[in-house]
Amino acid sequence: MAAPRFIDLTFREVEALPADTVAVLPLGAIEQHGPHLPVSTDYVTATEAAEAAVASVAEAGAASVVLLPGLAYTKSDEHHWAPGTIWLTWETLMATLVDIGRSLQTSGITRLMFVNGHGGNSALGQVACREIRRRFGLRTFFSHLSVPPDQTRDVANPHELGLGIHGGHSETSLMLHLRPELVHMDLAERRVPEHLADYELIGFGKPVSFGWLSDDFGPDGHIGDPTTADADTGRILFTAAVERIAQAIVEASVFDPTPR
Amino acid sequence: MAAPRFIDLTFREVEALPADTVAVLPLGAIEQHGPHLPVSTDYVTATEAAEAAVASVAEAGAASVVLLPGLAYTKSDEHHWAPGTIWLTWETLMATLVDIGRSLQTSGITRLMFVNGHGGNSALGQVACREIRRRFGLRTFFSHLSVPPDQTRDVANPHELGLGIHGGHSETSLMLHLRPELVHMDLAERRVPEHLADYELIGFGKPVSFGWLSDDFGPDGHIGDPTTADADTGRILFTAAVERIAQAIVEASVFDPTPR
Amino acid sequence: MAAPRFIDLTFREVEALPADTVAVLPLGAIEQHGPHLPVSTDYVTATEAAEAAVASVAEAGAASVVLLPGLAYTKSDEHHWAPGTIWLTWETLMATLVDIGRSLQTSGITRLMFVNGHGGNSALGQVACREIRRRFGLRTFFSHLSVPPDQTRDVANPHELGLGIHGGHSETSLMLHLRPELVHMDLAERRVPEHLADYELIGFGKPVSFGWLSDDFGPDGHIGDPTTADADTGRILFTAAVERIAQAIVEASVFDPTPR
Amino acid sequence: MAAPRFIDLTFREVEALPADTVAVLPLGAIEQHGPHLPVSTDYVTATEAAEAAVASVAEAGAASVVLLPGLAYTKSDEHHWAPGTIWLTWETLMATLVDIGRSLQTSGITRLMFVNGHGGNSALGQVACREIRRRFGLRTFFSHLSVPPDQTRDVANPHELGLGIHGGHSETSLMLHLRPELVHMDLAERRVPEHLADYELIGFGKPVSFGWLSDDFGPDGHIGDPTTADADTGRILFTAAVERIAQAIVEASVFDPTPR
Amino acid sequence: MAAPRFIDLTFREVEALPADTVAVLPLGAIEQHGPHLPVSTDYVTATEAAEAAVASVAEAGAASVVLLPGLAYTKSDEHHWAPGTIWLTWETLMATLVDIGRSLQTSGITRLMFVNGHGGNSALGQVACREIRRRFGLRTFFSHLSVPPDQTRDVANPHELGLGIHGGHSETSLMLHLRPELVHMDLAERRVPEHLADYELIGFGKPVSFGWLSDDFGPDGHIGDPTTADADTGRILFTAAVERIAQAIVEASVFDPTPR
Amino acid sequence: MAAPRFIDLTFREVEALPADTVAVLPLGAIEQHGPHLPVSTDYVTATEAAEAAVASVAEAGAASVVLLPGLAYTKSDEHHWAPGTIWLTWETLMATLVDIGRSLQTSGITRLMFVNGHGGNSALGQVACREIRRRFGLRTFFSHLSVPPDQTRDVANPHELGLGIHGGHSETSLMLHLRPELVHMDLAERRVPEHLADYELIGFGKPVSFGWLSDDFGPDGHIGDPTTADADTGRILFTAAVERIAQAIVEASVFDPTPR
Repeated sequence: MAAPRFIDLTFREVEALPADTVAVLPLGAIEQHGPHLPVSTDYVTATEAAEAAVASVAEAGAASVVLLPGLAYTKSDEHHWAPGTIWLTWETLMATLVDIGRSLQTSGITRLMFVNGHGGNSALGQVACREIRRRFGLRTFFSHLSVPPDQTRDVANPHELGLGIHGGHSETSLMLHLRPELVHMDLAERRVPEHLADYELIGFGKPVSFGWLSDDFGPDGHIGDPTTADADTGRILFTAAVERIAQAIVEASVFDPTPR
Repeated sequence: MAAPRFIDLTFREVEALPADTVAVLPLGAIEQHGPHLPVSTDYVTATEAAEAAVASVAEAGAASVVLLPGLAYTKSDEHHWAPGTIWLTWETLMATLVDIGRSLQTSGITRLMFVNGHGGNSALGQVACREIRRRFGLRTFFSHLSVPPDQTRDVANPHELGLGIHGGHSETSLMLHLRPELVHMDLAERRVPEHLADYELIGFGKPVSFGWLSDDFGPDGHIGDPTTADADTGRILFTAAVERIAQAIVEASVFDPTPR
Repeated sequence: MAAPRFIDLTFREVEALPADTVAVLPLGAIEQHGPHLPVSTDYVTATEAAEAAVASVAEAGAASVVLLPGLAYTKSDEHHWAPGTIWLTWETLMATLVDIGRSLQTSGITRLMFVNGHGGNSALGQVACREIRRRFGLRTFFSHLSVPPDQTRDVANPHELGLGIHGGHSETSLMLHLRPELVHMDLAERRVPEHLADYELIGFGKPVSFGWLSDDFGPDGHIGDPTTADADTGRILFTAAVERIAQAIVEASVFDPTPR
Repeated sequence: MAAPRFIDLTFREVEALPADTVAVLPLGAIEQHGPHLPVSTDYVTATEAAEAAVASVAEAGAASVVLLPGLAYTKSDEHHWAPGTIWLTWETLMATLVDIGRSLQTSGITRLMFVNGHGGNSALGQVACREIRRRFGLRTFFSHLSVPPDQTRDVANPHELGLGIHGGHSETSLMLHLRPELVHMDLAERRVPEHLADYELIGFGKPVSFGWLSDDFGPDGHIGDPTTADADTGRILFTAAVERIAQAIVEASVFDPTPR
Repeated sequence: MAAPRFIDLTFREVEALPADTVAVLPLGAIEQHGPHLPVSTDYVTATEAAEAAVASVAEAGAASVVLLPGLAYTKSDEHHWAPGTIWLTWETLMATLVDIGRSLQTSGITRLMFVNGHGGNSALGQVACREIRRRFGLRTFFSHLSVPPDQTRDVANPHELGLGIHGGHSETSLMLHLRPELVHMDLAERRVPEHLADYELIGFGKPVSFGWLSDDFGPDGHIGDPTTADADTGRILFTAAVERIAQAIVEASVFDPTPR
Repeated sequence: MAAPRFIDLTFREVEALPADTVAVLPLGAIEQHGPHLPVSTDYVTATEAAEAAVASVAEAGAASVVLLPGLAYTKSDEHHWAPGTIWLTWETLMATLVDIGRSLQTSGITRLMFVNGHGGNSALGQVACREIRRRFGLRTFFSHLSVPPDQTRDVANPHELGLGIHGGHSETSLMLHLRPELVHMDLAERRVPEHLADYELIGFGKPVSFGWLSDDFGPDGHIGDPTTADADTGRILFTAAVERIAQAIVEASVFDPTPR
């Protein structure tokens, strides 16, 4: 069953959507992903996963849900230096999300879930979720493609040291699963900033974050080890992500923080 | 042959694109289109026509050209009142186009053509073309889906009085050609504001334009006569539009206003 | 009879203006107009034509109308490079027009007509007309100084090839009629970008527009052939423009798009 | 001798202006001025005084000076409630002044003097003077129409208690001198907020200023006593203001804060 | 008795503040103050004076008053060139003051007094006072640290010629009183732009103001003569300023411009 | 030893700071914190912890470090409804942080660490860290007051279920340690939204975040269980936070992501 799409409806069909329908908005990115991956990587993974999750929820009848057209151009300022990156400033992306939230309010939509494929959108997405809730009253949710370690432990690359955040083992595997014809494994090289392990508090996933640009780590633009990627790992990661997003959509359709 | 897509390239492939490559950016809209058409109408027509034109140019080897992901959400403020419309303010859309122009400059792209499916974007698109040229040096072009009367005279609906500007005979025919399963001909009704003919100077396509909202013309939201639409007319219109856009892309690849 | 001027009224006289009074706002420009014309050219033509049209309507008692102070500084970004050009960004001019629209709403004015003398304002003016209608409820209209060919055929310069868009035959003639003392015919030279005729689809008045700056066409800044200009042609053009604007004002005072 | 006007020049004449030419920009306002004065009051006084001062300086050959078109629409937010007021927000007016400053830089102008007729512009004008100096390097100056008490003592109205700040004795006299046909002395009434004298520190011209709107003082909108106004007083005030502004222009043409 | 502080209250205590409570907001600056004074000078003087004045009013029970946390970072664009200056643009500071005004409205506060220690904030503060009054209905007041000559005549430095506006005799004396350990009198040098006296109309405190940057006067950054400063003068100035601000707070608690 | 403070320096002392000096900027908040805590809670904890950490690093000579004045007013939009909350919009706070970053660049500062006491600032702080790095080249770091569970396990309140995010056990304990006189334990009540445990994926600290306002959880405004708080727990939490921030400052002074 195909994912029900907001844009396939007439305006009167939109008006007639059930209460508590969850609108799902994929957030991609068009940005350099190293010499081996297309600049569409995050857009492909976000839109494919969101579409599959929406289809799964709809097929199961678990919630009323509609898929919105994903955003290809988002906040890739950390890759601003690179050809192939098309990035919006934080003001532009916030304005876009706010405009969408306001429009959904007019459409009678009360629940909005972002499905994000690009880490650089996460912080701004949090800001937007609150802004849209405050100004337009929507319940807003922000989910990522990443999946919990306990579901994917066996497919991780230990040589990445947990630093495969951009164009590494996982993303390359996902693309080998979803768009193998666009992956240039012959150009894949290991680029793991191992020296970050020297810092105890500052780093990716450590208590203190830092403001980085991708060329802080070298001219190739990716961070991780794509050489170990394979399509089967990509399939496992994708399936786990879709399942989790589908489950989150169902939760979002009934989520209510008000004390009972 | 498929249309060559910017986002399928790696960042180094983008960097290596030939000089004078034309990047083509479809501008759609998500907005009410009357009770009989999906809110995606302008997005579908713009992206389909752009894709076909880019493919045609590439196949003919007539110019170097790449297709960018189209914008689904644009400036539909004239339909702001309607469920199903998702609209950006003029500030947001301008900021988006400017950000894209700046990014293309970094990517080494020097020629950008908009292929626009939504009349409400035309004026702002003109402003953006100049802004991007001034600030980033790109040669910019703005084309529409509409085709010259002499190519499509035989398929026009005389009962529209030239007023079929939104969800009327032409657009409905296009959608019957491109997405027949999304068109509800049983709900199509004629909504032609015939009294506009009373005004000699003010009106659509007349010397003096006016600022209108679609609900100025009634609650159904469309303006025109969709009842006469058919897929064959749509096919003729679509083919003519694609041919013209393809020709414009080739011209754009060599266009130079500098006196010789 | 002098044109009735908004600013000559006390605030209580403004409050007491008849319903459906049309407020007329001239849009000029201060920008380079070639070596032979003053930078005020568009400001002079717009304000003179608007004033004459308003006076004519008022004298005839054909509608209630008031003239607003014209804007001298507008969007001349295509001439940004030239001494003598004083230009507002699109954001600034839009903000100005929006502020004026909001103020007119407070003043009880419900109909606003722009009379535009500068082509570079046209696109933004369209955007403003819709914005002001949506946010403040005014009926908005946008008219130009240009007149239909059938009224002015005999005074055109065939050597311009239809490319006399800035400081050419028509504008120079208008200024020879209105401000002969400011025109330097001894410095007038033909600057017609004839090679634009090589392009079938892209060009001034062609199906595909392009984003241009005036120095794209050479350092003199004007586009057209002023050498053939004469005051009598200017008088004919001016009279035709005033008549048309006056007629548009009368139409605007009763214009109503609502189906009857 | 007429005031030399920037806009009468061609762009090459602008380019050829002498170094240290002072560009003079009148700041008016369109705003309610009580039941007896036109909404143009501040615009009339600022533009007339600036024009006379520029003409005087030019005639005397005391400095190189050019007059810019005055701004009619400025920051009249204190009169936002009144029909007849057309006001820009602070953002819009600042953006306008910044755009003008940037354009004058391109024009080779290095000295800019504002001649302000509306008190509500004074604070923002100070901000703009610094912004334009910092960003574009112009020497900027801000002058008012008001004249020192020792020159005009004999024409003051003691019954105003120094509170005639808007539409009172002085402004009404100025308009009786400049535009007698627009002044409705039959509607002039005394509106002096005498109770403000109860406050020692807070008030007009006192050490602590306060944020006021004109309807804080009552529905008539003016603050002062116009009943005592006469054209002769207006003439004296006007002449004194023009002389002072002319003198300031000459000073501005040589002003240099750099220690010698 | 300590100054009652807004931030020491719970939100329900804020809600329960008496009507007409005056909230006092100190405006400091972090900016170069010459080689002899810390960059905190304006922040220290504004916050110390405001705190003392609030404490004095509260102790006397003369009005209900609360102290807000002062702004350290404000509009120091005239010192933008200097290390140690941390400055907000005019847009940022206006947005900050507007946001604070809106929040105070939600808190039930109806009277807001700024106590300003930095001259560069004065003009923008006037704009903000009106904006906050118009949009949020608060009565707003703007006071400075400066005191009238008749109270401090004996402590002035005649060698400054009235030009000690930044880091001169008065400010240095104030800091010798408030933070002697941070003043480097060994580095204090006289920097009086005596030549400004050559201009009759343009200058500090003269009828025509000018847009200046502090490095217009030389590389040391201060303007005045700190060499004569002493702590006793500082104490006298500080005491006079506190008394005046306290008196202004009391006035502000009952100030009403409405005619009775 | 007192924390070295940026603002105590003259501008030449700022200029002379060692390379790689870390500037530390505390981010507080003024916002409702339930009926029992002052609105200053986050401001107090952030500024006290940052000051103690800076003092500790300076005393140990472990790195060159300076403390900046903390921001009291930040992004508390989730508490916008409450008296006592003074909040900046995301635009205003971003503009403030960007302005500070630009000023620090002029000051020669190359490393900036935020010490954040308010969860609502975290996402925007991430955006700012990248923006400041991209535009001004500073290395930027973002640290929180929270400490790792293994250091504070024994002082947690198991009855909070991990939901004590605002005005609960930890924050109340911190304030009992730092400002006992401002804590109203008699008004402390347990407000734990236990039903959030029903959701597996959506929630605080769960994989899918949601946009919440504090009044989504009830009118008291806090979320957690303050009834178990005590000063000793506060002391333990504070000491651990200070130690960690001090360690992070030292790391930040040498942090370099460039591969070696």
